[in-house]
Amino acid sequence: MSESSGSTLRVRLDLAYDGTAFSGWATQPGLRTVQGELSAALATVLRAPQPVQLTVAGRTDAGVHARGQVAHLDVDRAAWDALPGRSDREPGEALVSRLAGVLPSDVVVSRAEPAPDGFDARFSALERRYLYRIADPGAERDPLRRNDTVWWRKSLDVHAMDEASQALVGLRDFAAFCKQREGATTIRTLLDYSWRRLPDGVLVSTVRADAFCHSMVRSLVGAVVPVGEGRRRPEWPRDLQARAVRASEIHVMPAHGLSLEEVVYPAEADLADRALATRARREHS
Amino acid sequence: MSESSGSTLRVRLDLAYDGTAFSGWATQPGLRTVQGELSAALATVLRAPQPVQLTVAGRTDAGVHARGQVAHLDVDRAAWDALPGRSDREPGEALVSRLAGVLPSDVVVSRAEPAPDGFDARFSALERRYLYRIADPGAERDPLRRNDTVWWRKSLDVHAMDEASQALVGLRDFAAFCKQREGATTIRTLLDYSWRRLPDGVLVSTVRADAFCHSMVRSLVGAVVPVGEGRRRPEWPRDLQARAVRASEIHVMPAHGLSLEEVVYPAEADLADRALATRARREHS
Repeated sequence: MSESSGSTLRVRLDLAYDGTAFSGWATQPGLRTVQGELSAALATVLRAPQPVQLTVAGRTDAGVHARGQVAHLDVDRAAWDALPGRSDREPGEALVSRLAGVLPSDVVVSRAEPAPDGFDARFSALERRYLYRIADPGAERDPLRRNDTVWWRKSLDVHAMDEASQALVGLRDFAAFCKQREGATTIRTLLDYSWRRLPDGVLVSTVRADAFCHSMVRSLVGAVVPVGEGRRRPEWPRDLQARAVRASEIHVMPAHGLSLEEVVYPAEADLADRALATRARREHS
Repeated sequence: MSESSGSTLRVRLDLAYDGTAFSGWATQPGLRTVQGELSAALATVLRAPQPVQLTVAGRTDAGVHARGQVAHLDVDRAAWDALPGRSDREPGEALVSRLAGVLPSDVVVSRAEPAPDGFDARFSALERRYLYRIADPGAERDPLRRNDTVWWRKSLDVHAMDEASQALVGLRDFAAFCKQREGATTIRTLLDYSWRRLPDGVLVSTVRADAFCHSMVRSLVGAVVPVGEGRRRPEWPRDLQARAVRASEIHVMPAHGLSLEEVVYPAEADLADRALATRARREHS
């Protein structure tokens, strides 16, 4: 764990990406990933000898988007101070501007600034908010949104879906909705899970939790879509939740409807405590 | 001019497309166009021996999008009646469904139905509504919307732009904003031209007129952006409008910020009269 010290500075990055052409966040040999592109761009801009180490709040899967992703990196103080060159900009502003010139158009870093003491993009986070978009026959099918909206053939009852979703909210074991992982807890606090129709008819879900296990949002959506279709009762997802193992009846929904919208952090004074508490509770978020 | 007759039926199509990968609406040899793709798809579905003739409300340029485009075609009645096959669907529903199976994902036909008597997608139209999107530094730069939003480096004063835009509304000669065309009038009725910021900070313009000359919307936007930047006074676009020829100082804005959102037609009884009146007034819309 590297914290801010005399020679390095921890920097928080806020970023967004269109996940369509990425094999997810995490670097994988031979594949195009967000982390890979961003690390390489940072190395170029910071003149680092090798790809820059990044820690991210939400490790999104292949095809998943982000509008409110947060990451951190530790930067050599001299390199940080040198960023503005002869301009009178702040180093963070200069970094954003230079990254824009180097990054591909499907990744945008909107902000870069020194992180408060104790900040860890992953372990300090209090909650993550995701959004899922579905266009059923009652919605406009906008080809301009085909990359972040799932087109569904059957009509969906948004009220039934919303009712079924609300019943899942709370501090519970989400094993039924998680890909099992050795030694990792599946207990999470689901803070909000709701469905509504936008004016253009597109169904949008908001899903907030302290953290998510792997494929959890896409499983939560997959559990209520059959309710929206009328094939399952609104109580069905809640019944599944009572199980201690993954529910194989749940169809995990496509990645491209999903977007990480926001990561919430505590006030500055509570950052380090939060990170310690999170680490103690689970090794993987 | 082919109208509905005993053996053919005029069909209205409502459609949307992502213009990014198209060289505009109109068929051009060797280029990928919306008309080209749609004509070919219709020929396949209707089992027509050759590409189907289409008449469109707004002939969009390369890169311009549409969410509310309207076109018409004349279909052999026997082919129309055969569309449902053994299903109990309406022929229009069957056509929409079959086109969805044949068209590429960047074109969506949302509705197909028999047009009322006297309907002409181009000449019956009362008005067209366009939308233009710009993200300046005060807006979120959403990479998922990079194909229909222009990213602008300088901050824009939306109130100054709105004021300058409103001053252009009315029945006027728009020669300053038009690419000249021999023998074609540049007099149009601009019904609405306004600017506002969406909650995410993106600047959106609504532009409505009875019809538009070539590149008119992109020129209208180009005339007020310098006002938003503070480089020109809010009266500048209105002063340009007083000229009888194209204003070369206007920077025509990029195509990808523009989308045709809606085409408005008169009530059924007035359709044929409207088409006759439009034809009499101008040969090209």
